[in-house]
Amino acid sequence: MLFQVRMDVDIPRDLDPALREDVVARERAYSQELQRGGEWAHIWRIVGHYSNISIFDVASNARLHEILSALPLFPYMRIEVTALTEHPSAI
Amino acid sequence: MLFQVRMDVDIPRDLDPALREDVVARERAYSQELQRGGEWAHIWRIVGHYSNISIFDVASNARLHEILSALPLFPYMRIEVTALTEHPSAI
Amino acid sequence: MLFQVRMDVDIPRDLDPALREDVVARERAYSQELQRGGEWAHIWRIVGHYSNISIFDVASNARLHEILSALPLFPYMRIEVTALTEHPSAI
Amino acid sequence: MLFQVRMDVDIPRDLDPALREDVVARERAYSQELQRGGEWAHIWRIVGHYSNISIFDVASNARLHEILSALPLFPYMRIEVTALTEHPSAI
Amino acid sequence: MLFQVRMDVDIPRDLDPALREDVVARERAYSQELQRGGEWAHIWRIVGHYSNISIFDVASNARLHEILSALPLFPYMRIEVTALTEHPSAI
Amino acid sequence: MLFQVRMDVDIPRDLDPALREDVVARERAYSQELQRGGEWAHIWRIVGHYSNISIFDVASNARLHEILSALPLFPYMRIEVTALTEHPSAI
Amino acid sequence: MLFQVRMDVDIPRDLDPALREDVVARERAYSQELQRGGEWAHIWRIVGHYSNISIFDVASNARLHEILSALPLFPYMRIEVTALTEHPSAI
Amino acid sequence: MLFQVRMDVDIPRDLDPALREDVVARERAYSQELQRGGEWAHIWRIVGHYSNISIFDVASNARLHEILSALPLFPYMRIEVTALTEHPSAI
Amino acid sequence: MLFQVRMDVDIPRDLDPALREDVVARERAYSQELQRGGEWAHIWRIVGHYSNISIFDVASNARLHEILSALPLFPYMRIEVTALTEHPSAI
Amino acid sequence: MLFQVRMDVDIPRDLDPALREDVVARERAYSQELQRGGEWAHIWRIVGHYSNISIFDVASNARLHEILSALPLFPYMRIEVTALTEHPSAI
Repeated sequence: MLFQVRMDVDIPRDLDPALREDVVARERAYSQELQRGGEWAHIWRIVGHYSNISIFDVASNARLHEILSALPLFPYMRIEVTALTEHPSAI
Repeated sequence: MLFQVRMDVDIPRDLDPALREDVVARERAYSQELQRGGEWAHIWRIVGHYSNISIFDVASNARLHEILSALPLFPYMRIEVTALTEHPSAI
Repeated sequence: MLFQVRMDVDIPRDLDPALREDVVARERAYSQELQRGGEWAHIWRIVGHYSNISIFDVASNARLHEILSALPLFPYMRIEVTALTEHPSAI
Repeated sequence: MLFQVRMDVDIPRDLDPALREDVVARERAYSQELQRGGEWAHIWRIVGHYSNISIFDVASNARLHEILSALPLFPYMRIEVTALTEHPSAI
Repeated sequence: MLFQVRMDVDIPRDLDPALREDVVARERAYSQELQRGGEWAHIWRIVGHYSNISIFDVASNARLHEILSALPLFPYMRIEVTALTEHPSAI
Repeated sequence: MLFQVRMDVDIPRDLDPALREDVVARERAYSQELQRGGEWAHIWRIVGHYSNISIFDVASNARLHEILSALPLFPYMRIEVTALTEHPSAI
Repeated sequence: MLFQVRMDVDIPRDLDPALREDVVARERAYSQELQRGGEWAHIWRIVGHYSNISIFDVASNARLHEILSALPLFPYMRIEVTALTEHPSAI
Repeated sequence: MLFQVRMDVDIPRDLDPALREDVVARERAYSQELQRGGEWAHIWRIVGHYSNISIFDVASNARLHEILSALPLFPYMRIEVTALTEHPSAI
Repeated sequence: MLFQVRMDVDIPRDLDPALREDVVARERAYSQELQRGGEWAHIWRIVGHYSNISIFDVASNARLHEILSALPLFPYMRIEVTALTEHPSAI
Repeated sequence: MLFQVRMDVDIPRDLDPALREDVVARERAYSQELQRGGEWAHIWRIVGHYSNISIFDVASNARLHEILSALPLFPYMRIEVTALTEHPSAI
């Protein structure tokens, strides 16, 4: 099942720099692992923002929540979820 | 260059049914032609809406406007355009 | 899979009264059929509005879209979909 | 009487971790007690958010306010209340 | 139980004048009957608007919906409902 | 002259507890004094919020501003003022 | 007592031209009469809009509503009212 | 040239009290100097807010920005600027 | 003096086609005349919209209003005006 | 390719003054270098705001993101990007 997810990141300015670096590195590794597994189908940067628009392809709502709430940056993000389905004009 | 485009369709209730059918058929053909050409990279239906979220991959802003303003449903749509670029964590 | 769906109905004032009555009757029958089948798990009226808040329990996003877009009142509704999942504190 | 209540939790990052843990544990216990008593009829997690959508079934507005303002997480939540009633198409 | 209700009236310009007059007259009579019965506790005009802010004192959500949906102007109004309760500082 | 005033209270979490208690106590005393004097005609709690909806009956705009800006909680409130007048259907 | 009032005019395109002309002429005469009387203290055009920002100096809320609801363009306007008072830094 | 300017003041709670007093005193002096010079044509308090609505009469956009950005409270304000011009119905 | 102006065009679907063509042609001629005169300094199309973002360089607010309110498409546009001035970092 | 970019600056009050000065100086130098290179085609100050409206002329979305995310003030700005293209009426 497909979902569009927009993530707007806002890391607090006073976060310990080492912690910040660690969180960002773990976010990257976690994202790439999910991309390789096929559940994180697409990820694009929004121009001019510390944000991404992603497409997830998951087995259930529960699985999507499990993935999103485990994001290392989850505490520092605003997330919007939009349920998608196949478009009748898609080839 | 990548853009996310959201299209919300609102065809007036009093549009001539034959015209409506014709517009919708031409929209579909036009979309599929652009999909086959690679410029309309993805199209998904938004659950519960007469709307789609699409990804375009075009040579320029001018080309994107040319494509969108030529949509048969253009007069009956609200369109939002978001400029995208490659995400550093994309694999 | 669970979804909250809010539906705000706005039937045009100039709709033919017989058509209106027919659409409303078919909406009711269709809703009750889906309630009996278990997919339309709950439906509540919002006080002071021609609106409802409903909970759907469906197999997929595709099935939810199929249900919603087939609602007799679909052309006269604004719909909002929110993906839900089990709450860890639910008993 | 039925109410839909949406709760968006935002615990300050600098809250003492022990206090945080205590508040979350008490929230859970309090919620489950009210669920067992029947007043907190449903609770669902919103996918991608530290939020829930709940249905309360209470004797009065006063009782609902008493319940909500006694939530251990009350100081760290944004709450929206929507009055509901039985839907004429409900079976 | 107390509710604040705001009603913004927007009667279509092309409504038959006799029907308009009749609807407005019935609205007035209905409102005054409920005021005399004590359920429509207060009604004030908002300065510069064809709108009112009212306080209802009713036995239940269901009763409030019954009252509001039976307003002769109901089809031509936007309504907002806010659940109230006694304030601890009220004398 | 009548005004509806909505007050949403947001006391900073790090306010000295003794100061907080003092401010809240003075707010209560001040509100009750104005209620007894007739200028603060009504005050209701909004269910699920640290907020109230009040009706003021004052001699002038200047007097209303004098009252509101002297509220002990004024620095910690968001206030909305709506000018009201007698409704022609009020009995 | 002082109020700022913003009026955004939107005359329906299909209004009879003679009626439109008559309404606009009566609006102008009515406005100038109130300006001469001192109650309509200021009126300015908003650049690029068929709108004005005005200052009224009236005896009461009731008088302001009487003036505004009698505007010939009242049925074709959106009005916003903001209560003002003397500023302590005004000279 | 005329402009409406709305200023909403929000001085941080932890600003040094002496600095706060100094800033407020300088703001007042600066405002009165500009009022005497005729460029700050009007200033009114918004009832219930630490805000003002003002009318400026200045030679240019550049002069207006010079005035506003030099306000002692500028760092603690949200400002909205609306370009005005003479109204054809003004007497 | 510089202003940014955004214009969103929405020509009613039922406008007489000949009138529509005439209005659009006159709009184009009028715009180009002002561009040649230097007052309409820039005009760009917004991708995916029947809208433009323009920069005007005019002698006064009054002149800008005179220009905008004389646009042949003025009755079918939503206009937003933002006052600009030279930026200190501009070269 | 053309883009309109609006930047609203909000430097935290507690930023070290030397750091603040350094960031602002580097922002200015960086902007002027891009202006000289032709990619930052225009920059204007918005009257009454610590904000600018700019026009960028860049080879791609990727290049625009590279420029914007390297702004020394990037962490302290809200940015909005609007894709533009040539207007058919431009001379």
